[in-house]
Amino acid sequence: MTELTSMNRRDLQAKATHLDERYHAFKAQRLALDMTRGKPCAEQLDLSLGLLDCLRHNDYRAADGSDCRNYGGLEGLPEARQLFADFLEVDPSEVIVGGNSSLTMMHDTISQALLRGMPGGSGPWRTLPAVKFVCPSPGYDRHFAICQHLGIDMITVDMTAEGPDMEQVERLVAGDESLKGIWCVPKYSNPTGITFSEAVVERLARMRTAAPDFRILWDNAYTVHHLTDTPDRLANLLAAAKAAGNPDRVLLFGSTSKISFAGAGLAAMAGSVANIRHIKAGLAIQTIGPDKLNQLRHVRFFRDMAGIETHMQKHAAILRPKFATVEDVLTRELGGTGVATWSRPRGGYFISLDTLDGCAKAVVAMAADAGVHLTHAGATFPYGRDPRDRNIRLAPSMPSPNDIRQAMELVSVCIQRVSVAKLLTN
Amino acid sequence: MTELTSMNRRDLQAKATHLDERYHAFKAQRLALDMTRGKPCAEQLDLSLGLLDCLRHNDYRAADGSDCRNYGGLEGLPEARQLFADFLEVDPSEVIVGGNSSLTMMHDTISQALLRGMPGGSGPWRTLPAVKFVCPSPGYDRHFAICQHLGIDMITVDMTAEGPDMEQVERLVAGDESLKGIWCVPKYSNPTGITFSEAVVERLARMRTAAPDFRILWDNAYTVHHLTDTPDRLANLLAAAKAAGNPDRVLLFGSTSKISFAGAGLAAMAGSVANIRHIKAGLAIQTIGPDKLNQLRHVRFFRDMAGIETHMQKHAAILRPKFATVEDVLTRELGGTGVATWSRPRGGYFISLDTLDGCAKAVVAMAADAGVHLTHAGATFPYGRDPRDRNIRLAPSMPSPNDIRQAMELVSVCIQRVSVAKLLTN
Repeated sequence: MTELTSMNRRDLQAKATHLDERYHAFKAQRLALDMTRGKPCAEQLDLSLGLLDCLRHNDYRAADGSDCRNYGGLEGLPEARQLFADFLEVDPSEVIVGGNSSLTMMHDTISQALLRGMPGGSGPWRTLPAVKFVCPSPGYDRHFAICQHLGIDMITVDMTAEGPDMEQVERLVAGDESLKGIWCVPKYSNPTGITFSEAVVERLARMRTAAPDFRILWDNAYTVHHLTDTPDRLANLLAAAKAAGNPDRVLLFGSTSKISFAGAGLAAMAGSVANIRHIKAGLAIQTIGPDKLNQLRHVRFFRDMAGIETHMQKHAAILRPKFATVEDVLTRELGGTGVATWSRPRGGYFISLDTLDGCAKAVVAMAADAGVHLTHAGATFPYGRDPRDRNIRLAPSMPSPNDIRQAMELVSVCIQRVSVAKLLTN
Repeated sequence: MTELTSMNRRDLQAKATHLDERYHAFKAQRLALDMTRGKPCAEQLDLSLGLLDCLRHNDYRAADGSDCRNYGGLEGLPEARQLFADFLEVDPSEVIVGGNSSLTMMHDTISQALLRGMPGGSGPWRTLPAVKFVCPSPGYDRHFAICQHLGIDMITVDMTAEGPDMEQVERLVAGDESLKGIWCVPKYSNPTGITFSEAVVERLARMRTAAPDFRILWDNAYTVHHLTDTPDRLANLLAAAKAAGNPDRVLLFGSTSKISFAGAGLAAMAGSVANIRHIKAGLAIQTIGPDKLNQLRHVRFFRDMAGIETHMQKHAAILRPKFATVEDVLTRELGGTGVATWSRPRGGYFISLDTLDGCAKAVVAMAADAGVHLTHAGATFPYGRDPRDRNIRLAPSMPSPNDIRQAMELVSVCIQRVSVAKLLTN
């Protein structure tokens, strides 16, 4: 395919006419397709239907004999803690298993830090003149929303193929004690799909921070969500932080939201003994305990990490063709045009696409006008503002492969049309 | 029985010797009984075992066809909102159904008020020089713990047989704009068992508050938890507040913790449209939605309020003999002694017992030494400090009637022995 970026004006105008025809043909189909969120499809949810049958009226006791129907057990069932200890590669004593949402655990952790402080710090963050977080971007919009909602300033740093740009991160956190945290989705990252390299993990664990109570919020949301048979390996951040003498720097999060049921799974967090003691002190005020029956259900259904790994192969079998469809259409429609680049993730839920600078918003709006809904442009950056207006997050899990094909063809037309318009006005 | 308070020293000394003998006989039995918390017994939990069987692998859709396994539905399933609307006597649009803990909803509501403010107010409460709550006492220790944990000052007012002493409440809230809320357990109150009178509800709805964003936290935890066949009636606070022109003053809470499973039930909150909009804006940042499968389970199992009312009669049949045992032993052992008074609740989970001033801590310690554990003395007051050191909360739901008999006999001996010691030193 000819690079649009090297076409002359007449060829560009001819291209525009052709693209307009294609666009109007799509519009006539009155599509209604949604690729906005990383939401599992019904076929994926069906994989866990056994969860609905696996507890019965004579099965409600944990291994230690405790009655999972009643109050108590703030840190979760021992067998659920064991499962998540294997999942997060920590000791069971370092794990708290909660309700159905790891986002809630992250939000509450930061709320409590604002209201009560963090171990190692000098009191509630709310009493400080400013609280800031480092936000590698593009990143996860719901992380950024928590900061914005709670009045935490966000400092953007670049994402590279190995993780956050550590030169930027190290300089920032060493020089500013109001920087209290960094958001990370370290494996099959949202949205770029990369896995942090061992060197990046090591530097995060070792770096000097001006704030003594600095925290890495390690949202390991996609740790077993492989799309290939040769999974990425992520270095163990908590082990690295302990070895570096910074055991309290790290808070790990995970969930089964994209393993069992998105809305009725389990979430867990992990960290050093000092962190877990602090979190439990807050939880003791907030609740009398999590839903232990749902924890027992998950333990009965998955049994152990081997059970989860086997289960994830079934998810991959459903998701792979969907990701392949996106890749096929983008390659066919946009390969060699010079107006878009995109990720080829080895796991996770997203494809990250970059247009020419200044085109993403127009592309998303144009696709929406023709009935294809994408995550709004800018969402992957703090405050919803992509400084180069070029990043678009594609979430192919929910629609069928056929719908994905249609949607991506339309998106490709929109990208070319917006790019042509930009090139014509240059 | 002779009043201990009118005995002469010699009779008191003889009484002391006799009580010591009884106490040591109890101690020799090495009892291990727990009456500390309002925790349902296994027989009560068995009433809801059908919850474990009522969803199956072919039943996971709500009435509107939505898939309860997936993300979404921030305010809860429509049919669950309808159920709690009937439960809390409000409109479904005024309800949010959450996870397994109403305590969490209360804690989060106050956390959010501190961090973001409340509708009608002038910003986050955390920016104010002081935030205070009115705490009718004796009251629920976990309410007070939330305030203490979050740095909210507590102002104690007296509980009467009709609810909080409204003279005190009205004077306080009219004169101090840092008073932002009041805790209420309005029906079969924890621990005194009383139900707020219509006049008290009306005055709470109408009273003038210096703070425009003052909130009544109406923890209607025991609304269907009757112990008699002629239930108390509680006036509708939200309706009264609307009629008085104060629709946003009220936040209602309820749960099925003591209806279905204590640890795996449903919690809900309700309030005006402005309040619900505000709460939902916070929830949208905190979670992608509640566990809708557990909501569907409850809707399937209970169907409607009539289903809940019928179910509660079975709870009452289990609890009535336990409450009767406490009453019987206390009457037999302490009636006419002049050293204790206690409540005769018509519902709820507690009996509130008052000793002579200055005796409660010693009684609880003496009972614990003989293996009977009561809620620690002072717990029913802010900061765990009962100014008269006389209130003891008894929670008879968990132990068997026979264990309750033993425990209450021992407690009665302890009360008399501590009272005699006090009378002898006067």
